[in-house]
Amino acid sequence: MNQIINRQIQLASRPQGKPKTEDLKLVEEALNETAEGQVLVRNHFLSLDPYMRGRMNASKSYAKAVEVGEVMTGGTVGEVVESRHTDFKTGDMVVGNGGWQEYSLIDGALCRKVDPSWPSPSLALGVLGMPGVTAYTGLENIGKPKAGETLVVAAASGAVGAVVGQIAKIRCARAIGIAGSDEKCQYVKTTLGFDECLNHHDPALSVKLKEACPDGIDVYFENVGGRVFQAVQPLLNDFARIPVCGLIAHYNDTQLPDGPDPTPRLMRDILVKRLTYRGFIVWDFASQENEALKTLAAWIAEGKLQYREDFINGLEHAPQAFFGLLQGKNFGKLLVRLH
Amino acid sequence: MNQIINRQIQLASRPQGKPKTEDLKLVEEALNETAEGQVLVRNHFLSLDPYMRGRMNASKSYAKAVEVGEVMTGGTVGEVVESRHTDFKTGDMVVGNGGWQEYSLIDGALCRKVDPSWPSPSLALGVLGMPGVTAYTGLENIGKPKAGETLVVAAASGAVGAVVGQIAKIRCARAIGIAGSDEKCQYVKTTLGFDECLNHHDPALSVKLKEACPDGIDVYFENVGGRVFQAVQPLLNDFARIPVCGLIAHYNDTQLPDGPDPTPRLMRDILVKRLTYRGFIVWDFASQENEALKTLAAWIAEGKLQYREDFINGLEHAPQAFFGLLQGKNFGKLLVRLH
Repeated sequence: MNQIINRQIQLASRPQGKPKTEDLKLVEEALNETAEGQVLVRNHFLSLDPYMRGRMNASKSYAKAVEVGEVMTGGTVGEVVESRHTDFKTGDMVVGNGGWQEYSLIDGALCRKVDPSWPSPSLALGVLGMPGVTAYTGLENIGKPKAGETLVVAAASGAVGAVVGQIAKIRCARAIGIAGSDEKCQYVKTTLGFDECLNHHDPALSVKLKEACPDGIDVYFENVGGRVFQAVQPLLNDFARIPVCGLIAHYNDTQLPDGPDPTPRLMRDILVKRLTYRGFIVWDFASQENEALKTLAAWIAEGKLQYREDFINGLEHAPQAFFGLLQGKNFGKLLVRLH
Repeated sequence: MNQIINRQIQLASRPQGKPKTEDLKLVEEALNETAEGQVLVRNHFLSLDPYMRGRMNASKSYAKAVEVGEVMTGGTVGEVVESRHTDFKTGDMVVGNGGWQEYSLIDGALCRKVDPSWPSPSLALGVLGMPGVTAYTGLENIGKPKAGETLVVAAASGAVGAVVGQIAKIRCARAIGIAGSDEKCQYVKTTLGFDECLNHHDPALSVKLKEACPDGIDVYFENVGGRVFQAVQPLLNDFARIPVCGLIAHYNDTQLPDGPDPTPRLMRDILVKRLTYRGFIVWDFASQENEALKTLAAWIAEGKLQYREDFINGLEHAPQAFFGLLQGKNFGKLLVRLH
């Protein structure tokens, strides 16, 4: 057994700025034996997420960097083909951090069975996985949208943004999205039910955002930074909450933008408007994961929560799909179908 | 009655940058009659506080601006000389917002009797007033220093900073102060009992702060901004809390500092370290005022909380004293003795 030839994508070199094709390489190698406590998983789906760009850098972040020559980190859903952990048996569908590869040996303590009642196991990487729980816990603990308040979120058709806005609507707040194309904006309004969605390529973004938020902004769920943040800032109301979850506009930056240095203005706003900026990572609220998944799954079953998956076929196409993700080329939760 | 000639200091013009002598003028005028519901107070003490610089500007802040030709706003303690409010009688010592003047007509609903058991009624403007309650509520609600953590506060010999650091010590945290002279630093360490205090004029401030905080910084009580903030930022630990209470280094700014624009780095820090920046004003926690005063007064009685008052004699000297406050020339809570 385990004479399987595995295909995986490794970090070949640390990107400077925008990652290039040569920074990732496809490698074939024989799998190790499944050790005691591990499960061998044949991965069906690999999740591609913006945070992975950070893992490609050497610099300290909230998680350790991927080393050059290591398999790229990433969430996976797949089928157990051999189990040496008592909680799992062959045929179980599990979610875990299997990395960018077709087969993974995962410590059983670090993976979880996918609820077979869910519409598709791939949802365990999106609306019923890390992105959905990120949206849920960021709002429950920090954003706290109240009825009648206005919430703004960018990347609104993406895995996290779509859930953020729909939860705001469920909480009877107004949801204003920002997305990267007119088609995405249409989807965000029509299918996801946001009150408005603006195209961030529109040169009049600031003006239009002001029009879309006549009562100001009470919650800004920050996942992009850059121009959107600049458009949002002057519209923040007293006591607004800003969960800081991602900054995709800056992940490829190699230097700081030109001045002036607006820090004193930002801090004055924080003081005068009594703003709360708070960064978080989904696992800070690990104890709320079960509650979040139960609630999100119920909303899906009730038709209150929509989702969209954007599939790419084949591990070899993961790098280009990931580069596209950093430029907003995906439309919905980006997944690589591996088998 | 009320044929009293009152002396007051009015805003004569809105300062551009650093306020000048001509921006404030001393005016004498006859007092109005005491209206129903009001008390006439002969002020003994006027509090001078950094926030007053903001009130001199036209721009929107958390409180309305002082208009040109109006008396400058400010906290006062004085003796009731005529009462048309049932809660007060002649001779009561009261604290309220009497403004920069020798006599004030104050709505009885907006002032409070000073506890006669306190060591001095002037404390109702300092350690047992707005500055003390600011320190207390900012730490109880946002900073939350825990035993063994490290707290940093600037203007450490000032009205707010001195209380912040001493509360940190009472909570068994380490307290590192920053102050504007070696004499102040000595006082902060010896009398207030901080673990360390650094002179912000020291060109090696960043290096020395790092040495003084070998385990990083868990709470930074922000009341100054500028260089101190820059020195603190790289030392913040994961999950650090930054109550934003004041930015005295920037109150006279007329333009933003030169670039680059470090916002992406600041936001990345917030995200990666899961920092909380939260602005507050003392009256956001008005419901906690009685608890705060009771606790602070008890700590004074037990010898756990020290304070220092810096008195100036005569209303006519208030403007220069205030200008000095903005440059850190006071040593302790700055008060004008009016009679």
